[in-house]
Amino acid sequence: MINAFRENHTLLCDFYELTMANGYFCNGWSDKISYFDMFFRQIPDKGGFAIMCGLEQVINYISDLEFTEDDISYLRSKKIFSDDFLDYLRTFRFTGDIWAVPEGTPIFPGEPILTVRAPSVQAQFVETFILLAINHQSLIATKANRIVRAAQGRPVAEFGSRRAQGADAAILGARAAYIAGCSGTACTIAEERFGVPAVGTMAHSWVQMFDDEYTAFVKYCQLYPDSAVLLVDTYNVLKSGIPNAIRAFKECGITHGGIRIDSGDLTYLSKKARQMLDDAGLNNFTVCASNSLDEYIIRDILQQGASIDTFGVGERLVTSKSDPVFGGVYKLAAVEESDGSITPKIKISENTSKITNPGFKKLYRLYENKSGKAIADLICTHDEEIDPSKPLTIFDPDYTWKTKTLTDFSAEELLVPIFKSGKLVYDLPTTEQIRERCKNEIDRQWDEVKRFEYPHNYYVDLSQKLWDMKHSLLKEISSRAASDHN
Amino acid sequence: MINAFRENHTLLCDFYELTMANGYFCNGWSDKISYFDMFFRQIPDKGGFAIMCGLEQVINYISDLEFTEDDISYLRSKKIFSDDFLDYLRTFRFTGDIWAVPEGTPIFPGEPILTVRAPSVQAQFVETFILLAINHQSLIATKANRIVRAAQGRPVAEFGSRRAQGADAAILGARAAYIAGCSGTACTIAEERFGVPAVGTMAHSWVQMFDDEYTAFVKYCQLYPDSAVLLVDTYNVLKSGIPNAIRAFKECGITHGGIRIDSGDLTYLSKKARQMLDDAGLNNFTVCASNSLDEYIIRDILQQGASIDTFGVGERLVTSKSDPVFGGVYKLAAVEESDGSITPKIKISENTSKITNPGFKKLYRLYENKSGKAIADLICTHDEEIDPSKPLTIFDPDYTWKTKTLTDFSAEELLVPIFKSGKLVYDLPTTEQIRERCKNEIDRQWDEVKRFEYPHNYYVDLSQKLWDMKHSLLKEISSRAASDHN
Repeated sequence: MINAFRENHTLLCDFYELTMANGYFCNGWSDKISYFDMFFRQIPDKGGFAIMCGLEQVINYISDLEFTEDDISYLRSKKIFSDDFLDYLRTFRFTGDIWAVPEGTPIFPGEPILTVRAPSVQAQFVETFILLAINHQSLIATKANRIVRAAQGRPVAEFGSRRAQGADAAILGARAAYIAGCSGTACTIAEERFGVPAVGTMAHSWVQMFDDEYTAFVKYCQLYPDSAVLLVDTYNVLKSGIPNAIRAFKECGITHGGIRIDSGDLTYLSKKARQMLDDAGLNNFTVCASNSLDEYIIRDILQQGASIDTFGVGERLVTSKSDPVFGGVYKLAAVEESDGSITPKIKISENTSKITNPGFKKLYRLYENKSGKAIADLICTHDEEIDPSKPLTIFDPDYTWKTKTLTDFSAEELLVPIFKSGKLVYDLPTTEQIRERCKNEIDRQWDEVKRFEYPHNYYVDLSQKLWDMKHSLLKEISSRAASDHN
Repeated sequence: MINAFRENHTLLCDFYELTMANGYFCNGWSDKISYFDMFFRQIPDKGGFAIMCGLEQVINYISDLEFTEDDISYLRSKKIFSDDFLDYLRTFRFTGDIWAVPEGTPIFPGEPILTVRAPSVQAQFVETFILLAINHQSLIATKANRIVRAAQGRPVAEFGSRRAQGADAAILGARAAYIAGCSGTACTIAEERFGVPAVGTMAHSWVQMFDDEYTAFVKYCQLYPDSAVLLVDTYNVLKSGIPNAIRAFKECGITHGGIRIDSGDLTYLSKKARQMLDDAGLNNFTVCASNSLDEYIIRDILQQGASIDTFGVGERLVTSKSDPVFGGVYKLAAVEESDGSITPKIKISENTSKITNPGFKKLYRLYENKSGKAIADLICTHDEEIDPSKPLTIFDPDYTWKTKTLTDFSAEELLVPIFKSGKLVYDLPTTEQIRERCKNEIDRQWDEVKRFEYPHNYYVDLSQKLWDMKHSLLKEISSRAASDHN
């Protein structure tokens, strides 16, 4: 069913992926294997963790990769690509390997969240879409989870389609928000495609379309007696909206329903609304609040004693308004020589946080057995194995004298195989299963990591072997630079 | 050609559009004509104007509107829609009228930028997608134009696909950026679909893939002698990148090319780079800068004397990072009675800026003939005509004693017919034509409106007739509210 909705996004790539791919091809490197890692450097909103999301769309993209004759004609018209390369694109498919952290998993800066091992032309080419898909949905999932946590168990529905940055942002934003804990979405198509529960009742136009508010409410209750949530702020919340809603509920014999307040002082109005509903004997009727909410406003109005049962959150969730960019990058980590040996590659920078971790790597999450909570992530070289039956000493990669020895712990590998020699080897979980994983994996993080502000800085350490490799490469480059220019 | 790329977005609607549409239908209002306006309330980044963009995608959406049997089965499974309504959806098409401000036009808060006149079910249903498409692209066009203006004539290429909020945001973001004055995009598919020139040369991975930087540069120059822009910051800009680039240019006999700096102090490095290129006799070679740029940073580094010829701007453009939400809304303005008369509708709010302008309206832009510059926009009722041969007195709708009488002026209607009785009556301009219109229409605005900060507040006035109608409706509602609750 999903296939019917899929557009071919093969040419959704930065143009330089093509100029470089043509260059690798012309250089005789079509079969030269290279390794690229995706990782990110900063958690949005200065939070304690981000949430991996968007892998399913990467999988669809990789599976669908194919240049049409139209694509090739277009590329030929640019007059810079070699004919052999354009011919090669006719049968271009992804034939490499991909490992990735499953969707719904907390992720941290600096660690590989996706690794591609493939012929250079292919590995380079897939950069743009991989980044785009994972950057977008990880951003929204991370933001949505902050908002859900602020609501302290109250359902949060995603209402942002109309302010989303395009159709995909609306649909996949709803998907990411649901994975991260939202209860549903206003975006209908997200239910049809991904099973995200679609919810919604009325806009102000419904109320205005009738001669008066009371009639509008009665008509709605008659039509939808089991899901009557009446929007009470078209004219005046306390003087007109709530009294009319209460009359309509009673007139129509509604036994469960609610009201929604979409403007004004939500704390004050929700308390008054609760009182008026209770006074009318409608104690089980709910109060929903919407209107430019985010995690900070929700936290504040709940602290002020607002009496709100559910939230609708729109533009600030679906665009991650306070921090709308997830800065994932995709960097060359290694190349394979003709004898099969792996040569690590490093990207240096004056900004030390921008220096990459070289080589073909694996990623472990270490858990304390007693509490079940995550202690640190450990990036190793691909040939290392963590044996939890033996004590493990980890150290801060910047301040290496800060060490910690773990004894009673377990280790889980986070990068799981997705494609093997171009073949999908991963059983795609359902949206519901990803949502469940997200909840469980966040439960395995300490509360200190989940704080909105000044969270505990979760450790992402390097194994001794990887640290040594990185530092010898750094020394090599800096001594080469010194000798070149003395 | 565009058709091949189009997904059906019929169900990309807020769920309440469907519950309301079903309600209007069940209420016997399938043929009741209503009028909805789209307008916005605030210009992003506190700028002086926004740019209309996204209409072409609205037109595609309206033309394609159609519920598939799968859609109807899905809706039936929700168990709240009437069977008659679900049957009616089988043949649902848009049969109404749409007027809109052409893409590329400066637009201002409070004025209708799109008006729908259609049977209520239809007019309500199209809300979400219309808002989504125009909010998104108007946001990006508005931001991109700010960045282009900051660059003071230097070409700005859009480089943001990898950080865009989904595939549409990348592709249509590139379209909107080009319309607003960018010179091109990194997003290849945007050229194939919309003719936005695709540009790009190399990433750091190109340089790392070779044993040394010089070899990487030489190989690139040999392959692309006419478009060699070499990325010089993989190792060290001044000690390695630029010297190697100069050697490679000379070795390969490159006559025009450039370098790109993607990190570090762009002002300092670009000045040094210019000097080194000039000293090597490469005076016509360009310096391109990228790395988290926006209009503020570009303005600052140019003020500091940076020697940059072209800019690549990514995430801060394609997400409009500093203000990533365009708050367009879609509000009921009027309904037609069975005798054909039009009853205006108003949405009131304690926040006076949220009170809507009622009725079926038209929108004029008034120009001073002497300068050719725009003076004000005037919203009128649909049956008013502005006659520029007679003096026209306009007044501030809030401070009505502030008036201005225009004599030597011209008036242009901004809302043009797009659909008439469901039929497309608008000749879609090409992307290039829209870009041209954008440039010309912005040239007709005073410089004071184009300031980044504290711009002149452009006047959007109401005609006397519209003002009177609005105020009598406001009085009516407030007196009704008073009598209801005394």
